[in-house]
Amino acid sequence: MKMADVKRVVCLSGGVGGARLLHGLARALPGNSLTVIVNTGDDFEHWGLHIAPDLDTVMYTLSGLGHEARGWGLAEESFGALDMVKRYGGDDWFALGDRDLGTHLMRTQALRRGETLSAVTERLFTGLGVHTRVLPMADELCQTMIDTENEGTLPFQQWFVKRRTIPVVKRVWYKGTRKPAPGVIESIAQADLCLFGPSNPYVSVDPILTMEGVREALEKKTVVALSPIVGGRAVKGPLAEMIRSLEGEDPTPAAIIRHYKGLLTGMVVENGDEPFAAVSNCQILGTQTVMNSREDSFQLATKMLEFAAQLA
Amino acid sequence: MKMADVKRVVCLSGGVGGARLLHGLARALPGNSLTVIVNTGDDFEHWGLHIAPDLDTVMYTLSGLGHEARGWGLAEESFGALDMVKRYGGDDWFALGDRDLGTHLMRTQALRRGETLSAVTERLFTGLGVHTRVLPMADELCQTMIDTENEGTLPFQQWFVKRRTIPVVKRVWYKGTRKPAPGVIESIAQADLCLFGPSNPYVSVDPILTMEGVREALEKKTVVALSPIVGGRAVKGPLAEMIRSLEGEDPTPAAIIRHYKGLLTGMVVENGDEPFAAVSNCQILGTQTVMNSREDSFQLATKMLEFAAQLA
Repeated sequence: MKMADVKRVVCLSGGVGGARLLHGLARALPGNSLTVIVNTGDDFEHWGLHIAPDLDTVMYTLSGLGHEARGWGLAEESFGALDMVKRYGGDDWFALGDRDLGTHLMRTQALRRGETLSAVTERLFTGLGVHTRVLPMADELCQTMIDTENEGTLPFQQWFVKRRTIPVVKRVWYKGTRKPAPGVIESIAQADLCLFGPSNPYVSVDPILTMEGVREALEKKTVVALSPIVGGRAVKGPLAEMIRSLEGEDPTPAAIIRHYKGLLTGMVVENGDEPFAAVSNCQILGTQTVMNSREDSFQLATKMLEFAAQLA
Repeated sequence: MKMADVKRVVCLSGGVGGARLLHGLARALPGNSLTVIVNTGDDFEHWGLHIAPDLDTVMYTLSGLGHEARGWGLAEESFGALDMVKRYGGDDWFALGDRDLGTHLMRTQALRRGETLSAVTERLFTGLGVHTRVLPMADELCQTMIDTENEGTLPFQQWFVKRRTIPVVKRVWYKGTRKPAPGVIESIAQADLCLFGPSNPYVSVDPILTMEGVREALEKKTVVALSPIVGGRAVKGPLAEMIRSLEGEDPTPAAIIRHYKGLLTGMVVENGDEPFAAVSNCQILGTQTVMNSREDSFQLATKMLEFAAQLA
């Protein structure tokens, strides 16, 4: 189909990389045509607050308040509360910034009052002036759990932040609800194109795919992923090691395509990575994929949309 | 009795003024002899957190981390969380500082886990290196309520902070538990001297006196108060107007003594205020009572203790 005929686009996203692509997609698409479904498998409770790292990364990035170079958290941040928590002997392995706490406090208070995560997410995004439609994958908790070689089973943040991804991963599984948030299935069903951000399959996209009906809805669609593997390495995070330990193969775009078991119509990979992405029935576009600026994100989003539209 | 024979002292306290006196008392008395009973009638929930303003003012003052000139809050404070809360349209009438949030988060988390306010208070004080024994008046909520002339009944903080004490007070009452925290009655029963900080009777001392057994325990003791009225004015806060509207008389030390209905053995007043403190059966000491420095607090605490010991 032609780009001009593309009315609705859905993008599944994790944190930093996904958020950068979303910034470009939101610019490249007309208002109201983009719906984002965000992984909440990383959500956890800390200092008595409900923390939703990927939702916040997406929100801060889209609002322009985020720390651009780092990709997560707020640009101008202080850590006064953390300093006091340390004095009290509280948990200090996850550094919540002061401004960031404003978000967690508002979210937690709303959830305790009985508001759904979807509803409070919409309110928070609107508060920061972001009007892109962003849905959490689920309203209830579904936590990504990591079975490790020597340290048993760790909830995602314990493995990712507290243990700095050092324990080798044997298996990843998802504990909790399988019920997608309102609008998740409908937005996929109505989409002309479905995109996956350059997010870790195991801990960012798969949690969304485990929600009831999501995979089935995607199987009927044109689905194009942006490869999180560039030149045999993960752009960010522990993905390369996870592909080795979980798939028993080298980290390549092809390993990602095979992991999704036929779900992908196409993949966008880094220039030169095309030979490492050859899997039957999956079309490949090679281009510059690493996003170092908002302009990069916009250019990449535009190319990805055009490529996906051609495949639709 | 002689000061050397004074083994145990109890002081009832509200926030700023009481905390300044406590700083002096803690220096003037040997370790372990001082027990403080703090008003928690001002406690309330804000941003989903349990805020205990008087406990925190006492803790920050005794730890030396407090803002000395202002008398409450922490010395080096930022307001990043508040800025974000404002963006989300959250309640911004009570300005919680970022470092201060560390305290509220730790307290709230502990209370939600089932720890008592007494237990978490002891932990927090210890965390800041304060070893004075400080008890909340109660473990459960007992909230000071203000019946106003034109705006109905307001919980204390709504009247004090949100409405800046503008609505005229018709009556003050206390909603909630009457059960004192563990150690409150015992510490009074074992005290050689009982002191009241220069705290507002209606909203700082009376809430403690409404706890079951507190007044009865104090009636058997030498009780000396520091006058919160100096030269016909309140050193801080809305006390002068409250005496006028609640007692129908001018704000004087004598009005405070009469308010306590025979409970006070003695009162320490400002030099020159002695004629305005004449009430039968209550002894008066005139001295410099306004505390502008830690040295002032120490000198005043020493004189108050000697005066009370003489009366015991």
